Amino acid sequence: MENSKQNQKSDLPKVFVLRWGHRPQRDVRLTTHVALTARALCASGFILSDVEDSSIEQTVKKITTHWGGNFQFEMGTSWKKVVHDWKNNDSVVVHLTAYGENIQTSDVLNRIKTLKKDILVVVGSQKVPGEFFSSDVSDFNVSVGNQPHSECSALAIFLDRFFEGKELDVNFEKAKIKIVPQKRGKEIKSDLEFS
Amino acid sequence: MENSKQNQKSDLPKVFVLRWGHRPQRDVRLTTHVALTARALCASGFILSDVEDSSIEQTVKKITTHWGGNFQFEMGTSWKKVVHDWKNNDSVVVHLTAYGENIQTSDVLNRIKTLKKDILVVVGSQKVPGEFFSSDVSDFNVSVGNQPHSECSALAIFLDRFFEGKELDVNFEKAKIKIVPQKRGKEIKSDLEFS
Repeated sequence: MENSKQNQKSDLPKVFVLRWGHRPQRDVRLTTHVALTARALCASGFILSDVEDSSIEQTVKKITTHWGGNFQFEMGTSWKKVVHDWKNNDSVVVHLTAYGENIQTSDVLNRIKTLKKDILVVVGSQKVPGEFFSSDVSDFNVSVGNQPHSECSALAIFLDRFFEGKELDVNFEKAKIKIVPQKRGKEIKSDLEFS
Repeated sequence: MENSKQNQKSDLPKVFVLRWGHRPQRDVRLTTHVALTARALCASGFILSDVEDSSIEQTVKKITTHWGGNFQFEMGTSWKKVVHDWKNNDSVVVHLTAYGENIQTSDVLNRIKTLKKDILVVVGSQKVPGEFFSSDVSDFNVSVGNQPHSECSALAIFLDRFFEGKELDVNFEKAKIKIVPQKRGKEIKSDLEFS
């Protein structure tokens, strides 16, 4: 039985995701998955730093047009400028890395939540610059387990825990299509059918 | 402060992940991320159904050799045979799909857990065959939110919730290297240094 509370996105803290180290072509699909994960799990926006990749921009904007919400997409800005701006804006920078404090076995998530500030989540790909670990960049280095896996998965679990699951019960405004959850089969409603 | 309980993997129910619809070359990196997510989040094994892709096998086996655990890797078996065998073995088949019952707003996860059975998690890529939604295949169709995002993220959140976070606090046996979580910087220990 579905028990939708239809929380509004505006009730949740503002989280942006910065993707560092994207290699156009090679990383297109993974970075797209990271961006769509950010959107679906109620981050407010996604920043593809240092490079531009119009194919990702197109996919993300098309999904947002169809599926709703006010997800922001930005690309090409240098990561240093983004981090600098967020820090100057009294926000918190969280670097997701397998080397950081374990989100399960440490109290790092509580320490982040207690601050009640907007958050920039920095997600790398291959090896990130050593300075990402320093306090000049990251306020927290957080690991989603200390095993190698996927930046996509790490981001998903971080957001799910940060938003305490509420991000999966949000009404995406201005959607043209919506899924109606089913035990069997598929049901999609178009905006003409929304009551 | 780290408070590691070092749960053993054997305390947890057995979960295998079946990846359907893998296209060699095009999907190599994504499927690798799905497999590594399965391993890092304490699934017991990964089945690349219907096709073979030695590059994924090599990566997964190399990671397991270095980082420990007993993660099983299988490829080439038809999904129908895998599902048939699991069902005959009194296990539960969970199909992750954006169209299914919402893991947050429904009681589907509790209904799955209550069964206390081994689980085959079926993860598709693009469009899956319609029969995946039927009771011939899936016992449960579960959505991790009803927005389009990533099979990698959906699997990660499903496993994190199914294992209640314990999967991020597991000691991977026979590891040659281990990360020691840090607030700043990186620390890795080799097997010579494990006490």
